[in-house]
Amino acid sequence: MADQSFFTRLGPFSLADIAASCGAELQSGNSAHMVHDVGALDQAGADQISFLDNIKYRDAFRASKAGACFVAPQMVEFAPAGMALLVSKNPYKAYALCAQKFYPEAYPAARISPHAHVDPSATIGAGCVIDDGAVVQAGATIGDGSWIESNAVIGRNVTVGQKCRIGAGATVTHCVIGNAVRLYPGVRIGQDGFGFAIDPAGHVKVPQLGRVVIEDRVEIGANTCIDRGAGPDTVIGAGTWIDNLVQIGHNVKIGRGCVIVSQVGVSGSTVLEDYVVLAGQVGVAGHLRIGRGARIAAQSGLMRDVPAGEEQMGSPALPIKQYMRQIAMLNRLIKKQK
Amino acid sequence: MADQSFFTRLGPFSLADIAASCGAELQSGNSAHMVHDVGALDQAGADQISFLDNIKYRDAFRASKAGACFVAPQMVEFAPAGMALLVSKNPYKAYALCAQKFYPEAYPAARISPHAHVDPSATIGAGCVIDDGAVVQAGATIGDGSWIESNAVIGRNVTVGQKCRIGAGATVTHCVIGNAVRLYPGVRIGQDGFGFAIDPAGHVKVPQLGRVVIEDRVEIGANTCIDRGAGPDTVIGAGTWIDNLVQIGHNVKIGRGCVIVSQVGVSGSTVLEDYVVLAGQVGVAGHLRIGRGARIAAQSGLMRDVPAGEEQMGSPALPIKQYMRQIAMLNRLIKKQK
Amino acid sequence: MADQSFFTRLGPFSLADIAASCGAELQSGNSAHMVHDVGALDQAGADQISFLDNIKYRDAFRASKAGACFVAPQMVEFAPAGMALLVSKNPYKAYALCAQKFYPEAYPAARISPHAHVDPSATIGAGCVIDDGAVVQAGATIGDGSWIESNAVIGRNVTVGQKCRIGAGATVTHCVIGNAVRLYPGVRIGQDGFGFAIDPAGHVKVPQLGRVVIEDRVEIGANTCIDRGAGPDTVIGAGTWIDNLVQIGHNVKIGRGCVIVSQVGVSGSTVLEDYVVLAGQVGVAGHLRIGRGARIAAQSGLMRDVPAGEEQMGSPALPIKQYMRQIAMLNRLIKKQK
Repeated sequence: MADQSFFTRLGPFSLADIAASCGAELQSGNSAHMVHDVGALDQAGADQISFLDNIKYRDAFRASKAGACFVAPQMVEFAPAGMALLVSKNPYKAYALCAQKFYPEAYPAARISPHAHVDPSATIGAGCVIDDGAVVQAGATIGDGSWIESNAVIGRNVTVGQKCRIGAGATVTHCVIGNAVRLYPGVRIGQDGFGFAIDPAGHVKVPQLGRVVIEDRVEIGANTCIDRGAGPDTVIGAGTWIDNLVQIGHNVKIGRGCVIVSQVGVSGSTVLEDYVVLAGQVGVAGHLRIGRGARIAAQSGLMRDVPAGEEQMGSPALPIKQYMRQIAMLNRLIKKQK
Repeated sequence: MADQSFFTRLGPFSLADIAASCGAELQSGNSAHMVHDVGALDQAGADQISFLDNIKYRDAFRASKAGACFVAPQMVEFAPAGMALLVSKNPYKAYALCAQKFYPEAYPAARISPHAHVDPSATIGAGCVIDDGAVVQAGATIGDGSWIESNAVIGRNVTVGQKCRIGAGATVTHCVIGNAVRLYPGVRIGQDGFGFAIDPAGHVKVPQLGRVVIEDRVEIGANTCIDRGAGPDTVIGAGTWIDNLVQIGHNVKIGRGCVIVSQVGVSGSTVLEDYVVLAGQVGVAGHLRIGRGARIAAQSGLMRDVPAGEEQMGSPALPIKQYMRQIAMLNRLIKKQK
Repeated sequence: MADQSFFTRLGPFSLADIAASCGAELQSGNSAHMVHDVGALDQAGADQISFLDNIKYRDAFRASKAGACFVAPQMVEFAPAGMALLVSKNPYKAYALCAQKFYPEAYPAARISPHAHVDPSATIGAGCVIDDGAVVQAGATIGDGSWIESNAVIGRNVTVGQKCRIGAGATVTHCVIGNAVRLYPGVRIGQDGFGFAIDPAGHVKVPQLGRVVIEDRVEIGANTCIDRGAGPDTVIGAGTWIDNLVQIGHNVKIGRGCVIVSQVGVSGSTVLEDYVVLAGQVGVAGHLRIGRGARIAAQSGLMRDVPAGEEQMGSPALPIKQYMRQIAMLNRLIKKQK
């Protein structure tokens, strides 16, 4: 299914093997049946495995020709006849593990390109890939097995951990990066925060004296910008995923396992506790605290602290029930006035 | 008028020649009059040609010293005495063709820089320009007459069609590009979509197994990001124009001739049919269908499908009449409560 | 305090010296006391100096162990015993000057890297730094003491003034840059504006024949995009600060000393007079005039001209008092309907 110019597939694997390694229970189907690939519900055939995660695709599930499918217990009843079912409470996670089994992430063979520019004082670990045009400046350290893609720039004294991947054209300064961190192409890390004293005679720059600290297993999307701290560090907690074109201001502290969707902006000195979810285009004012597990809907604007676990929506944001009530009321008022 | 350090002008051309080649009718003025340049209404002189397209500039039109002007039939009455008028129902299009006549796009002479990094297994067509620091990786194909600007990176097995221009510092992977496509500087194409199963023990990555397919005559603005599909491809239809800093999520299908203004975000698996217009900073949720020719006002947030041809505005978006009614009602209520 | 891998500190300096050079009055404390560093209120010790600027941090001020602190006259009464106080009406500006005294911006020693690509027809001033992989194209001029970072691309015939710094991976074409201008990494300057005549048979490109003019002492944040004019120039006035991921459309004129926060979009041909402040994610429609000193709150959408000095908020934006009244009214209505 996947274009063989870009992806290399392993397998086939038996349904029994897949069920065991992906945390699903094989509820119907022959455990020895060999699966050759993953595929979308509307495209997969008899030797492929698919998944159903979004209720919107229930009809596609019913009509699917996929030989096997990861599915939640409550959706089993909608399965087409003859489809092998691998039941899991989290069918999307099971599918993710299965797709990783067929298409494991592969780094190129270790190699420092003669067209890369590595300062003699930099330290390059074992098994690294440094592509054409990449720059590693004085005193930088690249951990074992990391991959610096073409035309990326690793600044002076920056530390990159093990098994990291720094995307093409990304730039990193004033930063300490953990292990298994992935920066996508065009990411900007560690430049000066937007700090100056406003003055009609000419704004006065405040030297930005902190760093960016990126903990393990963080992913940071293409063209996202993370400014270094003004004094304290800017911190991105372990396992947090950040999408493309996001702005993270100086001194921001982001907890573990957060999810920050595209085009979000988080202003300076704000704290996101663990597992916060900010949907696309959310804006967060500075110096706020967003509580653990809070979930903020797309395009919302946060101007106050958010309690742990709360869902908010709107600009300015309200607790979601209050917001929904507001929308419903506006609709009623409009209808009255017709 | 245009700075000769940056632009090379052809001409002069007669009014007759310009009218014929730009699809306008010369309604007043000497058809043999020679025009030497294009220019803005408030700056053009007797040997230059301008255009009136926006009613806001009617007074500038009345006061203009331009020797000639493209103008819509209904604006002819406001013309200053002595100005040659080239009448067209679409004066902006006529002006565009005229400006192209004076300032045709010019590529540099064909040349592969010795400071570019082209893999021996890549295929470079006839008449290409590959600038300093550009990287073309293994198996990539660059079509005849295409221009890869400095420090751009064309990934493994990527196909670029004929007469394309890939801007400085842009990066492209997992992608098939048609003919006459233009990517502006810093564009990011083909990186992994934002796909993972949320899990408190660590989000689980879903391998992104699709590509990005960019059809002919697409323009993609600076620092815009287009993620590759998760399984299906992400597709940008022929003749679509995308502005700067736009985010296009995985699996999105964009039709032909769409216009997507700066800082828009389109979430994963959404479909835009042909000729959709999204104004600046619009956000579109995932898994939606936006009908043919729909027009969405700036900063709107789409959370539902939009019927073909509909204009919507607001966050969450409403049909434009309903939105206007809501705004008017809010204003009345505020005045009452003063 | 600051990580010595990334920052080099001067000093120590006496309180008397600091007060004199930073425009503050030493109200309590020994003028001969030596200060060794700057630091945040909650981290600074006896030989460090801090500042109090935001009322939110008054308790941190009361509990601070900092030996000295910049503070506004009205906050003096909250100072802890024994802290030396440097009183200023603008304590943040005083702190900025002090931090610059300890950590002056330092450029590397002048050097044109043998791995940079400088066209023989380019002019490089005295004392410049041109880093690995940077490209300076034909006819470009780089002023004395300027620094072009790795993999930045300076286009044909572009002029960069003195003491500028062009960030890693930035690209600049069709542009005239003044002195002491700083472009952060990934900035895109001078590409074509989003100009075309809409046509179902294929949108028709309007050649973009203007430039970008950037006056002295401008700062432009990471991955920000500024398109060149369509005919007139796009202009960024002296001393204006622009944050990351901002979009500035063609023909926009920005005055002196403006402040434009992250993810703002300003559409084509709009004028910002001097000292305008646009907070994060604001959108401004095209062809507007935003008056001198106007201040626009985060996420606002401007669809009309704004009078000088006015504060506005909301999308569509209203004068701030009217906006606040609208929000209050909505909240009352919701409560009624519970």
